[in-house]
Amino acid sequence: MRTMSFVKEVSQWILAGIGGIIQTIDDVEINRMVETIIAARENKILLLGTGRSGFVGRAFALRLMHLGFNVYVSGETITPALSSDDLVIVISGSGTTTTVVAQAGVAKDVKSKIVAVTSHPDSPLAEYADEVVVVKGRSKIDQIFDYEGRQLAGEYDNAPLGTMFELSVMVFLDSVIAELMQKLGIHEIDLRRRHANAE
Amino acid sequence: MRTMSFVKEVSQWILAGIGGIIQTIDDVEINRMVETIIAARENKILLLGTGRSGFVGRAFALRLMHLGFNVYVSGETITPALSSDDLVIVISGSGTTTTVVAQAGVAKDVKSKIVAVTSHPDSPLAEYADEVVVVKGRSKIDQIFDYEGRQLAGEYDNAPLGTMFELSVMVFLDSVIAELMQKLGIHEIDLRRRHANAE
Amino acid sequence: MRTMSFVKEVSQWILAGIGGIIQTIDDVEINRMVETIIAARENKILLLGTGRSGFVGRAFALRLMHLGFNVYVSGETITPALSSDDLVIVISGSGTTTTVVAQAGVAKDVKSKIVAVTSHPDSPLAEYADEVVVVKGRSKIDQIFDYEGRQLAGEYDNAPLGTMFELSVMVFLDSVIAELMQKLGIHEIDLRRRHANAE
Amino acid sequence: MRTMSFVKEVSQWILAGIGGIIQTIDDVEINRMVETIIAARENKILLLGTGRSGFVGRAFALRLMHLGFNVYVSGETITPALSSDDLVIVISGSGTTTTVVAQAGVAKDVKSKIVAVTSHPDSPLAEYADEVVVVKGRSKIDQIFDYEGRQLAGEYDNAPLGTMFELSVMVFLDSVIAELMQKLGIHEIDLRRRHANAE
Repeated sequence: MRTMSFVKEVSQWILAGIGGIIQTIDDVEINRMVETIIAARENKILLLGTGRSGFVGRAFALRLMHLGFNVYVSGETITPALSSDDLVIVISGSGTTTTVVAQAGVAKDVKSKIVAVTSHPDSPLAEYADEVVVVKGRSKIDQIFDYEGRQLAGEYDNAPLGTMFELSVMVFLDSVIAELMQKLGIHEIDLRRRHANAE
Repeated sequence: MRTMSFVKEVSQWILAGIGGIIQTIDDVEINRMVETIIAARENKILLLGTGRSGFVGRAFALRLMHLGFNVYVSGETITPALSSDDLVIVISGSGTTTTVVAQAGVAKDVKSKIVAVTSHPDSPLAEYADEVVVVKGRSKIDQIFDYEGRQLAGEYDNAPLGTMFELSVMVFLDSVIAELMQKLGIHEIDLRRRHANAE
Repeated sequence: MRTMSFVKEVSQWILAGIGGIIQTIDDVEINRMVETIIAARENKILLLGTGRSGFVGRAFALRLMHLGFNVYVSGETITPALSSDDLVIVISGSGTTTTVVAQAGVAKDVKSKIVAVTSHPDSPLAEYADEVVVVKGRSKIDQIFDYEGRQLAGEYDNAPLGTMFELSVMVFLDSVIAELMQKLGIHEIDLRRRHANAE
Repeated sequence: MRTMSFVKEVSQWILAGIGGIIQTIDDVEINRMVETIIAARENKILLLGTGRSGFVGRAFALRLMHLGFNVYVSGETITPALSSDDLVIVISGSGTTTTVVAQAGVAKDVKSKIVAVTSHPDSPLAEYADEVVVVKGRSKIDQIFDYEGRQLAGEYDNAPLGTMFELSVMVFLDSVIAELMQKLGIHEIDLRRRHANAE
């Protein structure tokens, strides 16, 4: 009997982990985030985040643009002046990354609305935030065994550093996109029209 | 009885989709990719991709850097001259994106090794590639129903454009990282040492 | 007598070179470019370029944003679909860079207006362009001597590769900004309002 | 008689301004910076800066890479962990940009050497720095007149915001490259070999 490859085993384990993490997100927090994004439709939305959380934020920003939102990404060339009408969505597992917290502080100063997606609702980032969506990072499972009874290396090595947080937020935010599309009556065909062609 | 929120339902549906897609990846292609990456340990690795596939590539590049690889990302400031010793990993669902195919062509000219991660093994990109890892995009399911029997909007609106491909590749490549860690005897603690601090 | 440091000597030599290069730009080409940009005020402007030419383009894009233009930069997250109403400004000394020419080709396909800033009016890029602004690169001077009669290393080593083109275009485009401000009645105080704060 | 176009007049005025600014840079500061960069040849160099100063830093980073330095740019995918052996070069006219100062603070914590290029030697950034290179911004001239006696709009509108600082630093750093090439015995032909080909 052919066993599943290690890569596929880890994938299944990661997917189960993500599923568990997303189930623990508070529905009230989700709904509030969705409504806050819809309310920002006439204003600017800025995505903040560094490293892999930053890439997850950019992937979300790209879809928000496809949905017709006026969205920007921190650290890129075209980043506008923020005002009190604007929305800042910050992604940081730890909620402590130096530059992210510094930028959130500036956004706070100009009274932009801040939504933090973080594992730590008591972090410096979360303190700046008007709304927090808690997405847990590592789950509790520390060891698993494969189909042949070998101990897998433990989650630290199968999903090192912020992997579980980043993947969970990526899937979660793509699901938020689905809800935004439904609520705003936007269909895939509308997205295609806003998709970059000269790339 | 409280039903699951739409966002969570879509998440579960997306995760099931990703799981199915990853199961269809050819184990031979996976193993060859892992070996090719390990063989490039003393040389340069360049990640190519645009849009959301580009972000998935960057997330992978960051982990490869954490593992000690000499890795670069196309479109950023510091991108080296490629040679025949180097490895280019290209991510493109369609395998037809203009600039990506153009860059793969240049890499081909200097005889770098090219691994393409794409849904289309017969695409222009795949033709340039020495190795192809086929990761399917949209699954066949076109309609699903929620717990209350409402028809969900269909996968096109729940996972528009390349969403399923991008998410599947992201989870797949993080699983490749787990295998690379195991094969190279690298542990999470080693990654922490290479994690950027001034960000 | 204290002689000027080598760094300052090279600076003066570079500045003289830039001055000479800018004088050779055709006034008709300059005026047409200024008018084309003003005409694009209600539409989108996309800046294309790689490497140091790309950074020069981004610096220009940032100022165009400060002036109120709807401007984008290729290779960043938020890049819109182009249409026949839009303007693409491409910066490439050689006019042959693979991805730049490929992207210009896509812009041509959707009938966007293309302005090429290049040293080579007969390059593949220039062929796609509706308008060309020729900015020469290296000047003719091959050797200069410092205040003590030592031969300086020659321009190839004092301003290697595309240095003279890139610096000349940077100064030229900042001067175009000054003319745009004058023609549009925009003052520095207006720019301050659009300057990013959360960075 | 044909008069010079406004764009060319502004260019000449900008170039004269840059020339004046570069003459005021302290030769001791220049030499120390050159020696510090040469001393970092076996270690990592990180360029920090946002907005147009960030692009100037990236243009410098690219040339340092062409010279064989192990250089990184803040905000990009591949940014390494800094240590006390490494060099951080920060470009900020005001020396107060929030994230730049925050990142310099982190670099200070890990005892990396910090060189600040700034107009303000008493700024928060300069306080973190081990070495400061003062490059003035706006010159004193507030009004100039063109060849026909019309008053030009004043430097604020001809070179708004940080324009004079950014351009002066760009030319200055390219002159530093020339000195590095001379001191290290590197010639243009060596740079060509390290120039990215797949772009």
